[in-house]
Amino acid sequence: MTVTLPSRRTLATSAERRLNLDNINPHVKAAKYAVRGELAVKAEEYRVRLSEGDKSLPFDSVIFANIGNPQQLDQKPISFFRQVLSLLENTALLEHPEALRTTFGYQQDVIDRAKVLLADVQSVGAYSHSQGAPVIRNSVAKFIEERDGFSANPQDLYLTGGASSGVSTLLNIICDGPSAGVLVPIPQYPLYTATLSLLNAQCVPYNLEEEKAWGTDVNAIRENLSRAKAAGTDVRAIVVINPGNPTGASLSAEDIKGVLDLAAEEKLVVIADEVYQTNVFTGEFISFKKRLRQLQQEVSGKYDNVELVSLHSVSKGMVGECGHRGGYFELVGFDPEVAAQVYKYVSIMLCPPVIGQCLVELMVNPPKEGAPSHELYQKEYNGIRDGLRKRAFALYEAFQRMEGVECQEPQGAMYLFPTITLPAKAIEAAKAENRAADEFYCLRLLDATGVCVVPGSGFGQKENTLHFRTTFLAPGTDWVERIVKFHSEFMAKYN
Amino acid sequence: MTVTLPSRRTLATSAERRLNLDNINPHVKAAKYAVRGELAVKAEEYRVRLSEGDKSLPFDSVIFANIGNPQQLDQKPISFFRQVLSLLENTALLEHPEALRTTFGYQQDVIDRAKVLLADVQSVGAYSHSQGAPVIRNSVAKFIEERDGFSANPQDLYLTGGASSGVSTLLNIICDGPSAGVLVPIPQYPLYTATLSLLNAQCVPYNLEEEKAWGTDVNAIRENLSRAKAAGTDVRAIVVINPGNPTGASLSAEDIKGVLDLAAEEKLVVIADEVYQTNVFTGEFISFKKRLRQLQQEVSGKYDNVELVSLHSVSKGMVGECGHRGGYFELVGFDPEVAAQVYKYVSIMLCPPVIGQCLVELMVNPPKEGAPSHELYQKEYNGIRDGLRKRAFALYEAFQRMEGVECQEPQGAMYLFPTITLPAKAIEAAKAENRAADEFYCLRLLDATGVCVVPGSGFGQKENTLHFRTTFLAPGTDWVERIVKFHSEFMAKYN
Repeated sequence: MTVTLPSRRTLATSAERRLNLDNINPHVKAAKYAVRGELAVKAEEYRVRLSEGDKSLPFDSVIFANIGNPQQLDQKPISFFRQVLSLLENTALLEHPEALRTTFGYQQDVIDRAKVLLADVQSVGAYSHSQGAPVIRNSVAKFIEERDGFSANPQDLYLTGGASSGVSTLLNIICDGPSAGVLVPIPQYPLYTATLSLLNAQCVPYNLEEEKAWGTDVNAIRENLSRAKAAGTDVRAIVVINPGNPTGASLSAEDIKGVLDLAAEEKLVVIADEVYQTNVFTGEFISFKKRLRQLQQEVSGKYDNVELVSLHSVSKGMVGECGHRGGYFELVGFDPEVAAQVYKYVSIMLCPPVIGQCLVELMVNPPKEGAPSHELYQKEYNGIRDGLRKRAFALYEAFQRMEGVECQEPQGAMYLFPTITLPAKAIEAAKAENRAADEFYCLRLLDATGVCVVPGSGFGQKENTLHFRTTFLAPGTDWVERIVKFHSEFMAKYN
Repeated sequence: MTVTLPSRRTLATSAERRLNLDNINPHVKAAKYAVRGELAVKAEEYRVRLSEGDKSLPFDSVIFANIGNPQQLDQKPISFFRQVLSLLENTALLEHPEALRTTFGYQQDVIDRAKVLLADVQSVGAYSHSQGAPVIRNSVAKFIEERDGFSANPQDLYLTGGASSGVSTLLNIICDGPSAGVLVPIPQYPLYTATLSLLNAQCVPYNLEEEKAWGTDVNAIRENLSRAKAAGTDVRAIVVINPGNPTGASLSAEDIKGVLDLAAEEKLVVIADEVYQTNVFTGEFISFKKRLRQLQQEVSGKYDNVELVSLHSVSKGMVGECGHRGGYFELVGFDPEVAAQVYKYVSIMLCPPVIGQCLVELMVNPPKEGAPSHELYQKEYNGIRDGLRKRAFALYEAFQRMEGVECQEPQGAMYLFPTITLPAKAIEAAKAENRAADEFYCLRLLDATGVCVVPGSGFGQKENTLHFRTTFLAPGTDWVERIVKFHSEFMAKYN
């Protein structure tokens, strides 16, 4: 029998408790993370109300366009990946290969791959090496070599629980106290500012150039760097998100060189967040590692000591397996003694999820041409890629129809980040609610349509500009039309 | 074609690099984590050498008795768990229920459970709510209610990537700077001291009483607390590991009351690490939550404001699925504003691995009596439990045969933590190598036998005592005999 205690016990005041908002870690309190903030919480409340049959809302579904969560929306997992994972989870299935093939359509390469991975990890229920299982790191190294044309060493690779935990590890190593600073693009994925807040380190922002398709302007970075140094900040690293989040922008070889020049001259560690490397619509993805190695070949000396870390993940791309929390980072040019500290740091949390590690292996080593699973894999992969592109452009075209909305042509990642120009009356109404104008707009959008997006202020934006970030993952066009209709009514109301 | 660059590029000196051992985060540098330290690295090197056919070593296998990693050794996963997980990974399997039943022996409750979980998480590849999927938290709350006889609220539950990440979250919230202190048992699982180092907070140690079967002595805790307070430390919390790691000790109702009295009187948050709650050989496991609720019923007022957090995990017990990184913690009596900060903190890392969350659900809600999978589940569960007990006592008996080794009778967890008394000459030999004597002993043991254990200094021990921690997970008795033989030769050499 379960006893529920009298409620007086929940009536303790903050002052009576040991922990309250005024005495916990102030750096946790200071951290901001809008992607899962007030709007997301409200959207979830609406979802629950709808699922409980509430008919009082002016929409019949909630669209979570606030977060790059492909499989929450339309995206189906890639069969080859999930077939292998099912065998890793239940190795007893391997005892009946004939039934796997005939009834369930598992190809021989699915079965073979599961056996290779099991030979290395023993069981996905066992801890692995803290840097990740050796065979999986070998595959990642091979993938990087093939992508870039330059060698990669498995010992420099660290598998992670999604790229987020990798970023956290790296910033924990790099930041040595309140004077340490890291250059972060604006707009940015708020993981960076939140983690720097937690570490009580300085975010040194640099603006991306919206009018130049959200590219980098190295001169502007230099200016901000000088200003930060003059103010006593010990700037140690620069974050580049390529392709960009929330902007979707893909950097050119020249832009990347600009950042590497700066890194070499100013001795900055480069943190290259490359999780959207396969989500590229225009141009091609060039990794920072490849560009660095090219420059090291071309120019003697200058780039030799550049320290670079590149992050990747199973969460994005055509994989979209964010719930599995898999990823890796590669250290390039790091001091071995520092790398040993990175190892110690990650070993405290023992190891990243082993099934997520296996998924990293499958992502970097998919069925090759001629392999039994190749055709289905390629079909599914292309289907996801084409669907993303189609939805991105449909959304972009809708934005073009909207008064006061300007948007760069989709380039990559999973997001659009349009500028919105709001009427003065709307800005006043926001002030009256003590809110940023873009936040006010996004809240009204959610209340009216069930579509959840994130205000630009959650990522940072140039002063006196307003934006919002939306994914283009949700299926169909109904939700896009909801936005169009809301926007025109909103503008009419406040104009 | 892959280009390997000339090696001069790896010859940059520490001083030329941006990051070196002298300028990275000093708190990372200060952190110690022996479970995966020098000995573990050396053991892994031996394992690789053996696997490559090296015949020069005096042993033919490495026994990783340094870490509670059951499935790396003999322990098989529980079939019901893995069957459900295989369906979650590949939902296409659900399209052929007949083949699942007849060829693969999946019972109907396996299929049903997979469908219930999928209805909640949608896909194990999608991010979940940052606190964990709602249906899974409901199951955990029900489990706690049935275990304790007191109500539990799913909103107070936070699913985690193993208990380790939960501990990290909590200490990040609690510690507000260098004067913050947390009482930690000695010996302890080094996650606590390592995380406090990272946070630059104070570890306030309190000794467990080896002669009282590693129980707590509240008077001794009080003394240490007073001393720490007098030295200016703001002691905020007390960690209790029950059943103990590395000691295996199970606390009595009276011991638990003693800690709760102290917490109530001194306003300390209680962090109850209860991951070994099903690994109990003698007596019964009593949760801190249950004892707290009992005291709140029995005594008016005194315990009303106690803040307690209890942690659990899929890594230990008869589950042993540490590679899946699943766990949870429950906040009891916390200020809702503080709980909101915990939510924000965990949301920065998005969500714990979803397949690990599903495994938490299966652990807390296994097939009940009468359910089709119950019999097999119970048989496997009991088999693991009995095997652990048998191996624990076999190891204990071996220790009793060894000169200068004293060991408490096995009580629980997965470890024994014997005291060793070493000859003066051995202690001198250790000093000559600039090593602690227990570390010296464990290194010689590894070099001679391939058995990897962790020196007591990795967990902390009373001054002038020496210990080591060994798991009792490895199958067979050969490795135990290797230890016995080594020990007698070691003692002969240094006596």
